[in-house]
Amino acid sequence: MNKKIAVGVLGCTGVVGQKLIALLDGHPSFVVTDLVASENSSGMTYGERACWREVTDLSPNIRDLVIKRSYDELEAKILFSGLDASVAGDVEVWYAKKGHAVVSNSRNHRLDADVPLIIPEINPEHFALIKLQQQKYNSPGFIVTNPNCSITIAALALFPIHQSFGIDKIIVTTMQAVSGAGYPGVPSLDIFDNVIPHIKDEEEKMHSELLKIFGVYRGGQIAPADCKVSAMCNRVPVRHGHTMAISFSTKKAATANAIISLFSGVKSPQSLQSLQQHGLHLPSSPQTILQYFADPFRPQPLLDRDAGNGMTVSIGNLRPCQVLDWKMTVVGHNLVRGAAGAAILNAEYLLANGLVY
Amino acid sequence: MNKKIAVGVLGCTGVVGQKLIALLDGHPSFVVTDLVASENSSGMTYGERACWREVTDLSPNIRDLVIKRSYDELEAKILFSGLDASVAGDVEVWYAKKGHAVVSNSRNHRLDADVPLIIPEINPEHFALIKLQQQKYNSPGFIVTNPNCSITIAALALFPIHQSFGIDKIIVTTMQAVSGAGYPGVPSLDIFDNVIPHIKDEEEKMHSELLKIFGVYRGGQIAPADCKVSAMCNRVPVRHGHTMAISFSTKKAATANAIISLFSGVKSPQSLQSLQQHGLHLPSSPQTILQYFADPFRPQPLLDRDAGNGMTVSIGNLRPCQVLDWKMTVVGHNLVRGAAGAAILNAEYLLANGLVY
Amino acid sequence: MNKKIAVGVLGCTGVVGQKLIALLDGHPSFVVTDLVASENSSGMTYGERACWREVTDLSPNIRDLVIKRSYDELEAKILFSGLDASVAGDVEVWYAKKGHAVVSNSRNHRLDADVPLIIPEINPEHFALIKLQQQKYNSPGFIVTNPNCSITIAALALFPIHQSFGIDKIIVTTMQAVSGAGYPGVPSLDIFDNVIPHIKDEEEKMHSELLKIFGVYRGGQIAPADCKVSAMCNRVPVRHGHTMAISFSTKKAATANAIISLFSGVKSPQSLQSLQQHGLHLPSSPQTILQYFADPFRPQPLLDRDAGNGMTVSIGNLRPCQVLDWKMTVVGHNLVRGAAGAAILNAEYLLANGLVY
Amino acid sequence: MNKKIAVGVLGCTGVVGQKLIALLDGHPSFVVTDLVASENSSGMTYGERACWREVTDLSPNIRDLVIKRSYDELEAKILFSGLDASVAGDVEVWYAKKGHAVVSNSRNHRLDADVPLIIPEINPEHFALIKLQQQKYNSPGFIVTNPNCSITIAALALFPIHQSFGIDKIIVTTMQAVSGAGYPGVPSLDIFDNVIPHIKDEEEKMHSELLKIFGVYRGGQIAPADCKVSAMCNRVPVRHGHTMAISFSTKKAATANAIISLFSGVKSPQSLQSLQQHGLHLPSSPQTILQYFADPFRPQPLLDRDAGNGMTVSIGNLRPCQVLDWKMTVVGHNLVRGAAGAAILNAEYLLANGLVY
Repeated sequence: MNKKIAVGVLGCTGVVGQKLIALLDGHPSFVVTDLVASENSSGMTYGERACWREVTDLSPNIRDLVIKRSYDELEAKILFSGLDASVAGDVEVWYAKKGHAVVSNSRNHRLDADVPLIIPEINPEHFALIKLQQQKYNSPGFIVTNPNCSITIAALALFPIHQSFGIDKIIVTTMQAVSGAGYPGVPSLDIFDNVIPHIKDEEEKMHSELLKIFGVYRGGQIAPADCKVSAMCNRVPVRHGHTMAISFSTKKAATANAIISLFSGVKSPQSLQSLQQHGLHLPSSPQTILQYFADPFRPQPLLDRDAGNGMTVSIGNLRPCQVLDWKMTVVGHNLVRGAAGAAILNAEYLLANGLVY
Repeated sequence: MNKKIAVGVLGCTGVVGQKLIALLDGHPSFVVTDLVASENSSGMTYGERACWREVTDLSPNIRDLVIKRSYDELEAKILFSGLDASVAGDVEVWYAKKGHAVVSNSRNHRLDADVPLIIPEINPEHFALIKLQQQKYNSPGFIVTNPNCSITIAALALFPIHQSFGIDKIIVTTMQAVSGAGYPGVPSLDIFDNVIPHIKDEEEKMHSELLKIFGVYRGGQIAPADCKVSAMCNRVPVRHGHTMAISFSTKKAATANAIISLFSGVKSPQSLQSLQQHGLHLPSSPQTILQYFADPFRPQPLLDRDAGNGMTVSIGNLRPCQVLDWKMTVVGHNLVRGAAGAAILNAEYLLANGLVY
Repeated sequence: MNKKIAVGVLGCTGVVGQKLIALLDGHPSFVVTDLVASENSSGMTYGERACWREVTDLSPNIRDLVIKRSYDELEAKILFSGLDASVAGDVEVWYAKKGHAVVSNSRNHRLDADVPLIIPEINPEHFALIKLQQQKYNSPGFIVTNPNCSITIAALALFPIHQSFGIDKIIVTTMQAVSGAGYPGVPSLDIFDNVIPHIKDEEEKMHSELLKIFGVYRGGQIAPADCKVSAMCNRVPVRHGHTMAISFSTKKAATANAIISLFSGVKSPQSLQSLQQHGLHLPSSPQTILQYFADPFRPQPLLDRDAGNGMTVSIGNLRPCQVLDWKMTVVGHNLVRGAAGAAILNAEYLLANGLVY
Repeated sequence: MNKKIAVGVLGCTGVVGQKLIALLDGHPSFVVTDLVASENSSGMTYGERACWREVTDLSPNIRDLVIKRSYDELEAKILFSGLDASVAGDVEVWYAKKGHAVVSNSRNHRLDADVPLIIPEINPEHFALIKLQQQKYNSPGFIVTNPNCSITIAALALFPIHQSFGIDKIIVTTMQAVSGAGYPGVPSLDIFDNVIPHIKDEEEKMHSELLKIFGVYRGGQIAPADCKVSAMCNRVPVRHGHTMAISFSTKKAATANAIISLFSGVKSPQSLQSLQQHGLHLPSSPQTILQYFADPFRPQPLLDRDAGNGMTVSIGNLRPCQVLDWKMTVVGHNLVRGAAGAAILNAEYLLANGLVY
């Protein structure tokens, strides 16, 4: 077996940082060697500091790692970033210039012209932007990002339809889990027995990020997709798992059967066009990337968020829309498929394609 | 002071029946004299049977009423019906033929050609259908209905816009409270930490009922409105209060200010066109029928469902929609404005206009 | 009608501060003239700052008050304190020395030998300690305190039994609402679908405060009661209302009927021995101080926390205990009877007895 | 590898029945061959009927089993019973007489003089009662039972203390999960934002069953233990996992360290006295039967219910009690350790000891 690649986690004490560590613990290709958090955590071991909230136990070798500070020199080749947006911008660039592959879940650089915004099953050709950064920084380092949790889940459900029929309009109402707001995040007094009908900047992110993800790479640039996305984002009293009610219209006429058969076919990453070209299987790819339910009461976040270890996106209730063409329900795990798992999948892709070594 | 009108409640033990009784207790125009429930409750006093779940106490004169059975002869002129749809159809007709004004929250007769489906602030002219029933039954009795809880709340928010600009397309995603499913209703195991993305027949009702409510009465018939309604209905872990994310487009161009000023103007029933013609003030009408929030985090069901004693509809976050023209959030109390309070308001209108006496 | 007394609220933006203001708004004897909060709120109007989370609306005259800082000179005679324990200690003493009657819900001075810890229905004679403070400070000012929310509710239920039969042992398990932890307080990620079996210092407070409340005032001192209190404190996913499972033993033998008749008798403050001596009726006293349910499924926080506008304590399910003598369930509103309402009742008592004027 | 033993599940569609099937699917010693449910499910395959609510998928060989009726002849040697108490009594006896080993989670026969009530780590010697039944029925069949969910979890935590120091008094307040009430079970309207302070018959069961479990088998009889148990049972808004606040006193003086070291020692079934005598390791035994937390905020049902695949009991916060000697918090999974897993462990014990073959 090959030697594992050393990786670090920036922002290791937050909700995404903890989920990254939980998923990296025992990973077949990566071993966690560096943990970075804010000033007031540094110098402590992760076990002393972390206030671990994952249900699985923390392994001893991670528990004993001493937490470093941002801008400390790090050994690890790949740095996963779950940093808060208030600091991620500069820290990620600093480490990229130092030669690290920064695989970030933070929003700061997602829309930078030379930073790939990747869902590997959809747009791996966007990784080509990495070279622009390497030239700019004169360094082997770079930043790659994964999208916002909500749009990642929506994009995976919509992409096969977009490939086959072309999607031109999307109206999506999200019902988002509290874990998406981090920790301490949403006070219980605010969300018990309640819906909060606004999440700062979320609707804008869903719009602009989808256009980039579905965009076309050509000559060092991403031409954004030509579709309209309107999002209405809500927080609901659910722990994990974002639920989305999506209406959409297609450029070419489709049938319900044709759409559903697209979902059913997505049993492996190879069956999505782009990964197919690369013939890859990545360790965090679930056996079933998309699953469709005939039962109109599914998918539900409680029952379906953990499908495929949290990496499967679940779809149901496809039916005609009286205003656009179709409507459906989509559920995915916001912390796994929508954040930590998304970043790890990106890193696995980099490794499998020799973009880090 | 005038003598109060005797009223009865059909289906008095259910969630809507209990809310009807809570709202009728101490009502300035009505006094509850008849309570009707299913076979296995009849013969008991309401206090023995009801398993009262309202927070306010039950008054002694209602507690001591002996529950009757469907098809028992009743004294009360007006019968409020919170009957289950499995029995409401026949029972309501039977009492209408017997000469009672049946004011029903049940769905069975809502779409009957000669049964008015009323929100008094919107379409009181539809009450004219009553005469058709009286002729058919050769009786002073009749059935009037109020719409489904979700569409009542949505319709109140949309109506002033419809009047001023004409609405032609609506996409609405509901996040509905568990009390909308009655009692025992939604098992806690199904809805804790979960969203259920389907409610049987709800989407169809929202479509067909809105077209009738916004329809035009002419010559003994309702011509349905010419607009398209697409609903995606979800159950969320909220006790009371339905939240709706609504996108819509208008026939005439509107501005955000113009729309918001419509909401702000709706301080009394008179300010909605139709009630204005009648110069009425009804006891259950709230001081503010519609309230608009500048804060994008409002309305919220927890904070706003009880506004106007549950009769005010709250609106917020009006903003341009990238696909249709506008989007906004609407919240209302499903059991009050969407059910029991809606029926009582209908009865108050009947009384104030001499349609019952 | 008499002129209202000017009052202020220290710590006006917190959960208890907001509840104090909600209860003082429209109070027959008090008018809010001073609002005090931490440095970063001062200078703003309360309406700008407060992030109001009470369901009732804020009245304009309070909305427009400009927030002051601790140690600013204040006009109001009575200062209600909902200050955080980290600052309450010094601030309250400073204002007492300045001549104010500080009516505090904070824990800092509750166990001070010369500070009364009062539930007016139980131990109003402890107010005599005020004179010791006035001598010490050489000022008309003083501090009076109300107990911790949990022990207030438990003490009210236990006191009539203690008077009649003498209680010597109490084991109480609390199931406490999240609003008891303030705002932002308990993160939703921590308490959804969970019980947290520890609340810092709460068990110690329940023990030591009950002994003082039930203690005997003599010669300028409180001799603590001779009973043993063991508390096990838990946080549960409930918004408002603390539920307590209490076992206790009595010095004199009692019967279930005798105990229940004690509860039923407590229809007014006069029926508790101590207030009886004073023949008082206070504005915030509920008509029924204690209510007992025959139904073993009651009391429940959802249904009973708001009884008597949150000032009634509800009791149920009295039954023999196999280890001590009796066990029962007690529910009360932690923010009203257990905090803000308790402080206001103390101030009303001071006013009615000429201790402030 | 040995041939697997055929087993059946009586009451296969309920919450306990579904959990039994989830745990038996892939079990190393058992294979499910018979499924039994009420009249209106029989004749359908389990996949058609079950309304599967477990998060793990149902395996095809179980999905395709056709459901039988009670009193149908069955092949399986061992029958697990999750039957409702309204029918379990007669059905279980009927199958025992027919020669089956009925391993029941139902309460009906738990206190029968000749029916063992077993927690294998505590009182496996009580299995000797089986012979009395076999003689009575003149059949190789018999009934064995596991205790109520709450007392199972409490008993496991208390037993090592009882062995070492003798427990004579226990006061336990339970905070029980909604899954303990089955499906549909607790309506969401009853338990959202609430505590229900009564569970029918639960307190009596905790008392009487503990005395039998801790009782001494001698000469074909169980002499009940000599200790007093007082329970106060509450339902809280938690999906799975019962939390218990327990006070107790011991006959011999103990220290906190001595008690905690008892818990820490329980790493395998062998370390509890009784299983030690038998030198057994059972497939469903967790690596750690009891785990103790130094952190006073643990155990919590959300974080600890799934420890040891739901078979570990978690303990924390041992501290002196001001009334009895000690108090502590105990958490366990009510459906696994407290029901389905308990029954399966009993069956594994029977198999390992040649009591079925």
